[in-house]
Amino acid sequence: MKNKIYGIGVGPGDPELITIKAKRILDRADLIVYPAPENGNSIARSIAAPHFPKEDEELPIYIPMSANRFPAMKIYQLASKKIFQAAQENKTIVILCEGDPFFYGSFMYIFGIISKKYTVEVIPGISSLMASSAVLESPLAAGNDILTVIPAPLENDVIEKQIEMADAVAIIKLGRHFPRVRELIDKLGLLENSVYIERATMSNERIIDIGAINENDVPYFSIILLHTRNKAWL
Amino acid sequence: MKNKIYGIGVGPGDPELITIKAKRILDRADLIVYPAPENGNSIARSIAAPHFPKEDEELPIYIPMSANRFPAMKIYQLASKKIFQAAQENKTIVILCEGDPFFYGSFMYIFGIISKKYTVEVIPGISSLMASSAVLESPLAAGNDILTVIPAPLENDVIEKQIEMADAVAIIKLGRHFPRVRELIDKLGLLENSVYIERATMSNERIIDIGAINENDVPYFSIILLHTRNKAWL
Repeated sequence: MKNKIYGIGVGPGDPELITIKAKRILDRADLIVYPAPENGNSIARSIAAPHFPKEDEELPIYIPMSANRFPAMKIYQLASKKIFQAAQENKTIVILCEGDPFFYGSFMYIFGIISKKYTVEVIPGISSLMASSAVLESPLAAGNDILTVIPAPLENDVIEKQIEMADAVAIIKLGRHFPRVRELIDKLGLLENSVYIERATMSNERIIDIGAINENDVPYFSIILLHTRNKAWL
Repeated sequence: MKNKIYGIGVGPGDPELITIKAKRILDRADLIVYPAPENGNSIARSIAAPHFPKEDEELPIYIPMSANRFPAMKIYQLASKKIFQAAQENKTIVILCEGDPFFYGSFMYIFGIISKKYTVEVIPGISSLMASSAVLESPLAAGNDILTVIPAPLENDVIEKQIEMADAVAIIKLGRHFPRVRELIDKLGLLENSVYIERATMSNERIIDIGAINENDVPYFSIILLHTRNKAWL
């Protein structure tokens, strides 16, 4: 198939944490599509750039950084139109996705549109979840553990109940919700079982003791891992 | 550091779904350690073998395939002794892990022992969770979804409650528990939202309609993905 479309996970930040398969597909891309903020650089692009082919066209999809990140469907529809156009020109189109394409990635909204008309092959990527676990030396889950991923913007009572029912928890998208989440974990007596990392494997990665974090300086790309046995191997 | 020890995720099955970093580390391995069944081939070895260096020693860790897979600590302790010995000989030691090392991987038990004495760098891998999602074209979670990973050997009431409280669910380690789990999902009216795959990205991968699966032929390496909105992008 000449005009195949690929959605590839570029991994969490370290350009070496891309798969051989994703790199091979990038090598023969004619058009590279990626999300980008309206001001500033695209993270997905900066991760994958060392693997770009010598010649290619690029199509940034500018996404407004609204606080709640609700999908901007109009933007995705417009981007899909441009992708359809390139597909009709028999171009090999590669869409870059931070981390894993289908783990809380906005790529899925474009996928939902373009997969109705074209075959889209999705190449999984290393998610921030697995990267954080590796860097923190804190295994996610073992044996018959229940592992729950909880977005921090959810209500306190929801987060609390989920933590109480799980063996292991990852709390993602902390940002301005961090103080509230830390207080909640403290209330549950689990602060000593919790570890924190921001921008795992990116060049500005930071691991900070959860008690020492400046509440006003927590980015969106941050994560708390918590295991009720403290270490999953115990 | 001469005698560094690495735990690398080799990905879910497709040898191309290994990271560039893991491949680079494998290239300079002196000793390659991997889990293996008492009879038959090591899955981790077969995934990574295309990337092995020309010359290396190998150390299989034979793990009895008991029904409940409770960690065989004596075996891990013995393997750790052999790893310590190799480390003292200034060898670069690479331990292979199916999927991601810290996502329900038995590697963590060895890590728990050897990381007390040596620096162990863990390289994350593509887990079966992300691979299944990509192959099934079924995104795991979006926005503020709660995503819960549930091992199938757990009790019915536990699984039921977890499904009811989550937006998206992955049920892993199905094997002989499959009929019970399918019945439970049916009872909750979520069978139409559920997709099934076994051995995602391995050469013997199978995607089967969840209603059509032979209950007596479900392997351990199988997974059900379920999203309460049917598709995460909706």
